[in-house]
Amino acid sequence: MKLILPNIKLQFEEYLIRWLEELDSEADLKDRKAFQKLKESMKYSLQNGGKRFRPLLVLQTVKSLKGSIEEALPYALAVEMIHTYSLIHDDLPLMDDDKERRGQPTNHIIFGEAVALLAGDALLTEAFCHIANSYKEKSDLLAQLLLTLGQAAGFAGMIAGQALDMDPQMINRKEDLNCIHRLKTGALIQASVVGGAWIAGANKKVMNGFKDYGLNLGLAFQIADDLEDHKDLDSKNYVKLLGKKATHDLLKKVSKNACDSLQEIGGSFFELYQLVEFNLNRVSSESLLKDND
Amino acid sequence: MKLILPNIKLQFEEYLIRWLEELDSEADLKDRKAFQKLKESMKYSLQNGGKRFRPLLVLQTVKSLKGSIEEALPYALAVEMIHTYSLIHDDLPLMDDDKERRGQPTNHIIFGEAVALLAGDALLTEAFCHIANSYKEKSDLLAQLLLTLGQAAGFAGMIAGQALDMDPQMINRKEDLNCIHRLKTGALIQASVVGGAWIAGANKKVMNGFKDYGLNLGLAFQIADDLEDHKDLDSKNYVKLLGKKATHDLLKKVSKNACDSLQEIGGSFFELYQLVEFNLNRVSSESLLKDND
Repeated sequence: MKLILPNIKLQFEEYLIRWLEELDSEADLKDRKAFQKLKESMKYSLQNGGKRFRPLLVLQTVKSLKGSIEEALPYALAVEMIHTYSLIHDDLPLMDDDKERRGQPTNHIIFGEAVALLAGDALLTEAFCHIANSYKEKSDLLAQLLLTLGQAAGFAGMIAGQALDMDPQMINRKEDLNCIHRLKTGALIQASVVGGAWIAGANKKVMNGFKDYGLNLGLAFQIADDLEDHKDLDSKNYVKLLGKKATHDLLKKVSKNACDSLQEIGGSFFELYQLVEFNLNRVSSESLLKDND
Repeated sequence: MKLILPNIKLQFEEYLIRWLEELDSEADLKDRKAFQKLKESMKYSLQNGGKRFRPLLVLQTVKSLKGSIEEALPYALAVEMIHTYSLIHDDLPLMDDDKERRGQPTNHIIFGEAVALLAGDALLTEAFCHIANSYKEKSDLLAQLLLTLGQAAGFAGMIAGQALDMDPQMINRKEDLNCIHRLKTGALIQASVVGGAWIAGANKKVMNGFKDYGLNLGLAFQIADDLEDHKDLDSKNYVKLLGKKATHDLLKKVSKNACDSLQEIGGSFFELYQLVEFNLNRVSSESLLKDND
């Protein structure tokens, strides 16, 4: 099943390409080969064909609240830059040592470990610069977006999740796994929804509902990943802990919680329900029947 | 010769300790060992006894313009966090593979490479969060500080310098070395001065003078480093290119340029002249006489 948001996805991809073209305009450094390589490395991972789940979630949230897609594009790009940097660093030999991602060689396989490290650092830094540059005329929004994204990505958010994920003791209890997943994947997905709600000027009730929706969607996203990837023996995984059937039941329950959060807000959120369903359905019944563990 | 700014340095160290204590208040994650280790790793490098040249430069700039030291402390800390993250990542085996810094084992020697990578990522992220949190009520200032620091640290600033520094072709011409040093060290030092000037509400003439001062001071700082470290055969170094005498002459010339920039502004900048002198004098005549290359 494909994610049916063609217009919004196209808008995002076009915006990304414009940003990449601007990267090329650093006249001072244009002739420096090592600088070109750094830029190519950033581009390679940003264009490595992901689902764009997080930026689409930003844009769809804004759209569902009748906000401006144009205004949301910079934040959506910043979220994708931060997601991309985290993948580049995670794939390094000193972390997960992954040689392939999305069917392509990982960044350090192509550009070397040092350039990959720097490309990750650069994407993280440019994400914040891009937000600062894009929302500097809207001061309250600027601070809200920076804090929403920064806290989700920071040492008590995504990075903590990564650190806990490396701890071999954190594998035996469901609550440990919940904690890792909430931080490592959930925080950034929640920040996509919440940032979108800030951009659209959501009121407090709507904001709280969207926080719940984001939390549950983030968890559902990770559970679906676990169901797809449970043959990866090194990683911490719900399927290994609960078995396939119970994990799939959990996915359905968490997905329902996400939808309930939307219902409580009241309003028309067709596409946001659709994102929950998209995530639920990427774990096809076929793949569930393939083996019985 | 010691840097004679005891009060300001003390204020900064106290502020840093308060921030580190706040790091400990993440109740949710307190009991997680891997999270504790990540925090210890961040603390270790932040407290590893550096000169605090950059934060002192921020504070001294603000003081010389009769601005508020209190208001400048968060920015000074953010600059030091970014400087510290860059050292942790540079020291990793995949970059410079340094086992010691300031007489102590480097971060990854103590905490392992994966934690060191994450601690660097966390310091970079928290630097921007800390600025967002501290200046959110002053919206224009918030955007200016983010952009000043972000561009200096980003892919066309410090990170570009790091990338160029790894290029073996970039060693034969003085202009290549200027470019590397300007980006790798100069950009963040300039951002310390310029950020301080923003905080103190400098007018355009003062700001331009301080930009020049920061640029020349940053270059002078790197040249002094080169004179101290020119036995490190792997690194790109003015001494190797120009010889010791010509490098020392260059240091004096660039230091004079920094002072001239201050003079052109007009005003009382005693302590900022002192910083130039401190840097000039750390290359003692003794060390210059020690060998003749």
